[in-house]
Amino acid sequence: MIWNTNLRWRLPVTCLLLQVALVVLFGVFVRYDLNADPHWIGSQRNENTTSDMENEFYYRYPSFQDVHVMIFVGFGFLMTFLQRYGYSSVGFNFLLAAFGIQWALLMQGWFHSYKEGYIHLGVENLINADFCVGSVCVAFGAVLGKVSPVQLLIMTLFQVTLFSVNEFILLSLLEVKDAGGSMTIHTFGAYFGLTVTWILYRPSLHQSKERQSSVYHSDLFAMIGTLFLWMYWPSFNSAVSKHGDAQHRAAINTYCSLAACVLTSVALSSALHKKGKLDMVHIQNATLAGGVAVGTAAEMMLMPYGSLIVGFICGIVSTLGFVYLTPFLESRLRIQDTCGIHNLHGLPGIIGAIVGAVTASCANAKVYGIKGLANFFGFDGFKTSWDSSMQGKFQAAGLFVSLAIALVGGIIVGVILKLPFWGQPADENCFEDSVYWEMPEELKSTVLHPEDSTLKPAEP
Amino acid sequence: MIWNTNLRWRLPVTCLLLQVALVVLFGVFVRYDLNADPHWIGSQRNENTTSDMENEFYYRYPSFQDVHVMIFVGFGFLMTFLQRYGYSSVGFNFLLAAFGIQWALLMQGWFHSYKEGYIHLGVENLINADFCVGSVCVAFGAVLGKVSPVQLLIMTLFQVTLFSVNEFILLSLLEVKDAGGSMTIHTFGAYFGLTVTWILYRPSLHQSKERQSSVYHSDLFAMIGTLFLWMYWPSFNSAVSKHGDAQHRAAINTYCSLAACVLTSVALSSALHKKGKLDMVHIQNATLAGGVAVGTAAEMMLMPYGSLIVGFICGIVSTLGFVYLTPFLESRLRIQDTCGIHNLHGLPGIIGAIVGAVTASCANAKVYGIKGLANFFGFDGFKTSWDSSMQGKFQAAGLFVSLAIALVGGIIVGVILKLPFWGQPADENCFEDSVYWEMPEELKSTVLHPEDSTLKPAEP
Amino acid sequence: MIWNTNLRWRLPVTCLLLQVALVVLFGVFVRYDLNADPHWIGSQRNENTTSDMENEFYYRYPSFQDVHVMIFVGFGFLMTFLQRYGYSSVGFNFLLAAFGIQWALLMQGWFHSYKEGYIHLGVENLINADFCVGSVCVAFGAVLGKVSPVQLLIMTLFQVTLFSVNEFILLSLLEVKDAGGSMTIHTFGAYFGLTVTWILYRPSLHQSKERQSSVYHSDLFAMIGTLFLWMYWPSFNSAVSKHGDAQHRAAINTYCSLAACVLTSVALSSALHKKGKLDMVHIQNATLAGGVAVGTAAEMMLMPYGSLIVGFICGIVSTLGFVYLTPFLESRLRIQDTCGIHNLHGLPGIIGAIVGAVTASCANAKVYGIKGLANFFGFDGFKTSWDSSMQGKFQAAGLFVSLAIALVGGIIVGVILKLPFWGQPADENCFEDSVYWEMPEELKSTVLHPEDSTLKPAEP
Repeated sequence: MIWNTNLRWRLPVTCLLLQVALVVLFGVFVRYDLNADPHWIGSQRNENTTSDMENEFYYRYPSFQDVHVMIFVGFGFLMTFLQRYGYSSVGFNFLLAAFGIQWALLMQGWFHSYKEGYIHLGVENLINADFCVGSVCVAFGAVLGKVSPVQLLIMTLFQVTLFSVNEFILLSLLEVKDAGGSMTIHTFGAYFGLTVTWILYRPSLHQSKERQSSVYHSDLFAMIGTLFLWMYWPSFNSAVSKHGDAQHRAAINTYCSLAACVLTSVALSSALHKKGKLDMVHIQNATLAGGVAVGTAAEMMLMPYGSLIVGFICGIVSTLGFVYLTPFLESRLRIQDTCGIHNLHGLPGIIGAIVGAVTASCANAKVYGIKGLANFFGFDGFKTSWDSSMQGKFQAAGLFVSLAIALVGGIIVGVILKLPFWGQPADENCFEDSVYWEMPEELKSTVLHPEDSTLKPAEP
Repeated sequence: MIWNTNLRWRLPVTCLLLQVALVVLFGVFVRYDLNADPHWIGSQRNENTTSDMENEFYYRYPSFQDVHVMIFVGFGFLMTFLQRYGYSSVGFNFLLAAFGIQWALLMQGWFHSYKEGYIHLGVENLINADFCVGSVCVAFGAVLGKVSPVQLLIMTLFQVTLFSVNEFILLSLLEVKDAGGSMTIHTFGAYFGLTVTWILYRPSLHQSKERQSSVYHSDLFAMIGTLFLWMYWPSFNSAVSKHGDAQHRAAINTYCSLAACVLTSVALSSALHKKGKLDMVHIQNATLAGGVAVGTAAEMMLMPYGSLIVGFICGIVSTLGFVYLTPFLESRLRIQDTCGIHNLHGLPGIIGAIVGAVTASCANAKVYGIKGLANFFGFDGFKTSWDSSMQGKFQAAGLFVSLAIALVGGIIVGVILKLPFWGQPADENCFEDSVYWEMPEELKSTVLHPEDSTLKPAEP
Repeated sequence: MIWNTNLRWRLPVTCLLLQVALVVLFGVFVRYDLNADPHWIGSQRNENTTSDMENEFYYRYPSFQDVHVMIFVGFGFLMTFLQRYGYSSVGFNFLLAAFGIQWALLMQGWFHSYKEGYIHLGVENLINADFCVGSVCVAFGAVLGKVSPVQLLIMTLFQVTLFSVNEFILLSLLEVKDAGGSMTIHTFGAYFGLTVTWILYRPSLHQSKERQSSVYHSDLFAMIGTLFLWMYWPSFNSAVSKHGDAQHRAAINTYCSLAACVLTSVALSSALHKKGKLDMVHIQNATLAGGVAVGTAAEMMLMPYGSLIVGFICGIVSTLGFVYLTPFLESRLRIQDTCGIHNLHGLPGIIGAIVGAVTASCANAKVYGIKGLANFFGFDGFKTSWDSSMQGKFQAAGLFVSLAIALVGGIIVGVILKLPFWGQPADENCFEDSVYWEMPEELKSTVLHPEDSTLKPAEP
């Protein structure tokens, strides 16, 4: 089979069509939220003050910028660990995220911010769009190196859509709490991505085996991604929590969980190596699992020690996953998970959903205060008959819904991406920038093995 | 001609003289703003509250830090794409910006914050100083690799001065709105820098051609710069906007414009390559043009779809500029623009000024509300006779003033920098760190071609 | 002597034991601060407002995130300048900081936030924990490349404890002002680290001399650390200052001092090289000395020109230190200071303490206002009989206490770390990642010199 990886028309046409459609849809549907409208004055928000400081912007903007860094630098650089795929890791992540946030503003807007015929945009929409794209970045980790940018745009188009439907079911229908997205972002993103890569299974991928490893400096670039994800994760989990104590608590819990996770990841990484040496893959990834796993419960009364326990467990589970589960998934289940997202987002996401369900089940007036309980869980009005136990059950239901939509959606999208005209690379040219990028002189001659005759683009 | 690139006395003397002068001038002129003075209490600012939260610090500081990152990491790393000029890109940018912000605090202070014999410093001055230096960083991009650090300090001295004069004319005399600096920062910086590099034309620059390209990892370093610029640009365009809705709106519009710009940059980059491959130069630069081009209008009622359209156009214009215009400028107009600032800051800056003028012209009470119009454009008091159409004309006038000062100033400064005693490198040693930096052992022997006998510093 | 550097049991056991102890202690002692508790409502804080915006979170969180970046990316990447120690620099810094912040939350919590049997955590505790760990990162710079991760965890355990005792003496007993930690963080951290490395003196360290230098790209990675430290230092020095003007002033002063420091560092670096070339070591380190040296006085009425003078002096002192003092310390005093922390944190820390003492001595009601003086220095209540001169003396006393605890503590901890079973590397294997890390294929064969037979891990 001759693979045509020449994107000269496919990529530009895809980008331009999508962008034109977005411009039209924004023109028809999108306006500013009251907080970003010149008609706004402080007193409209809170009768006791006329201060501009009450504008939602000041509550959320610093967290938004941190989340923004996580999506573009965090995920982008985390994936530069591959020796010959740095341009693509950063560049394709940039491309898919830039498209995804626009489409997410629309999709999430229709579900959550649609009033009087218009979507009203404010800073919270920007954060939620970044969150939605975060789940696409997770899925990208599974297929990294094996798909073309056109495939990534198509995947983003569908995944953002499915994400928004799933999020609507969870947050609006089931009234699940999931501020840090253990379910909506991580579990959904991971199992969606794993399903897609399962459908796209490449039996001869070993042909590009040597490029699936890192070189010294590519690992340092990846650490930039790891650290920005790790440092800003408290902002991620608190960014859309309720103002005040909930946002504050979410940051503290995430900080604690992540710190504990580093120690157990290091411990396991050393213990599982026959000479006790550390593996950069674990340091780059497993240390982050603690942030994923408090995504649901961080804003709840998880308590600092509870957060430490969650981080403790996830560092262990995630590192074990990298050592034992990833090879098993590849050899037995034909799931080729380039970045090991199952260990960083899949398992910890499920743990996070369970922790969230249990923590919600245990909520009571003693811990939260009566007003706190009403304010935080909304146990009033339509939900008067509800209680913590119900909330816990609905939380658990949210996990299963997320998994179901991820699996079904992943199969459908995987099949679409398997169509042979998206410009995907041949097995022996996976994990290789030169397929899609103009390379510096130094590398032009060394890029391809002489025997890679199949790479020759089938120019008409 | 023997070029003496030994800076042993020139650079230290320049640095120390400038810094001593700054200390003296700060001693004579600079004090704290009321918001940073211990006499301050919350109620002085707003009679309805005694909260410390009303301190200007909390409105502006997070945006300030983002802008600060853009100037030092953003611009610094963006220019590390050259294979042998990383130390200089980051290091000289650091040097000129550190000098420039101090000088800008004074220059802008005299024009805008001078009361009762003193300049009063607050966080907004810090942001504006960073903005001013941003225009120097833009101009640095045009002369990158071809000038000595002494020349850069001299250029910064003059450019900050001219910037402040231009900014005063625009903001205070013409009452132009330009919160994100499409005119004052980008257009001015770009055409100033292009004029300087035109005066400094080097006919034999092809001798260091091979070092004008990137290597694999230098391109990844440059992406750090690109991404921090891209991510924090919403803070850049909103940092000095009015509190509340204007700041909020500026962030949203910039976010939208930048996202659209990525897709069209990628589309054009692929479409213009004969095999459809992407070029890192476009991804590193053209993707940012959308931020430049909403600099003036971001805080206005540009609407989200308006922002998308601006970003859409700029991604295309900027990428076309890199492919067709930069080679043309070099071969026909003798303008050697190392980083292609004409495509990233010049053309998008002009587009931004035009978009701003048109958007201002269209302002009316229906869109902004009567109070909003008064509050935002200040259509009251002295300006009672003004209207949107007048504002639009003055906006357009601002563009021409900026271009005129940039061109005239650039010629004068270029001629000064052409004097032969600033330690500039010979043509065959351009784009080469080892001229000004102590190099690691590995590179010491490989730095210079054996035939580069002219490099020998002409020590007395 | 056969060095056993196999950490297979030592590192995991240390990590897991420490983490389990932390979980238990957190379970017994740690709860949320009122600001992070659902019982909180805005009005409890300030009777004039019921706004969530008065939650401490919104005053401190943006600064917290900046400090967090400084500790993990700033210090981590600053130390990647070594050609073969990048994994360890970033990775071990990550490990020790993740452990240290948890232990610091407890230690500092017992001293400062202990009420009714519990430590109450809020965002200010997170910042202070990061600060405390900052002093460990400083000390890590002295021993970089010569210790095992187990030793680093042991050092962190003791240093955090001593830091907290010293901090309690200074802030609570002597009532010293030290918001940016010139004494508590930098002076203490530097002299503690220097004492430890003096005890751990390695007479044959020249055997790994070649790996003590940088390569081209490792210097660029280090600049990422430098710049994030430099840019966010205004947040560092203002993060725990009083709300409002003090926080605002601390940011302005630090900004000014750092800017001046860059120019004098560059001047001296060039002046001290025989061909006038710049040295990356100075640019990476000395430029930061200005931030250290205004740590104590930044929130006081140091005045912008005062900050410039401090930065001016520190750039000179620090660069001179790198050129003349570091070699002297190594050859004569047997102090092997890998990163030159004496020049970046030691001397500037002492200068900062002196500047703080002098500035405090000069405080008077004319400069601060009567209310300002009472509010800022707390010259009322128990301290009614105090005055500025007393404050100045206590500030000076704080410096000597910090030095004394650092030296005595450093000797004790150094002796403990000298015990032969912590997995430290042999002299010829210092500054080498492959001792503790699984390396990429490319480097596996080139890592060790054939004659390094002593490296062979003494597997049982």
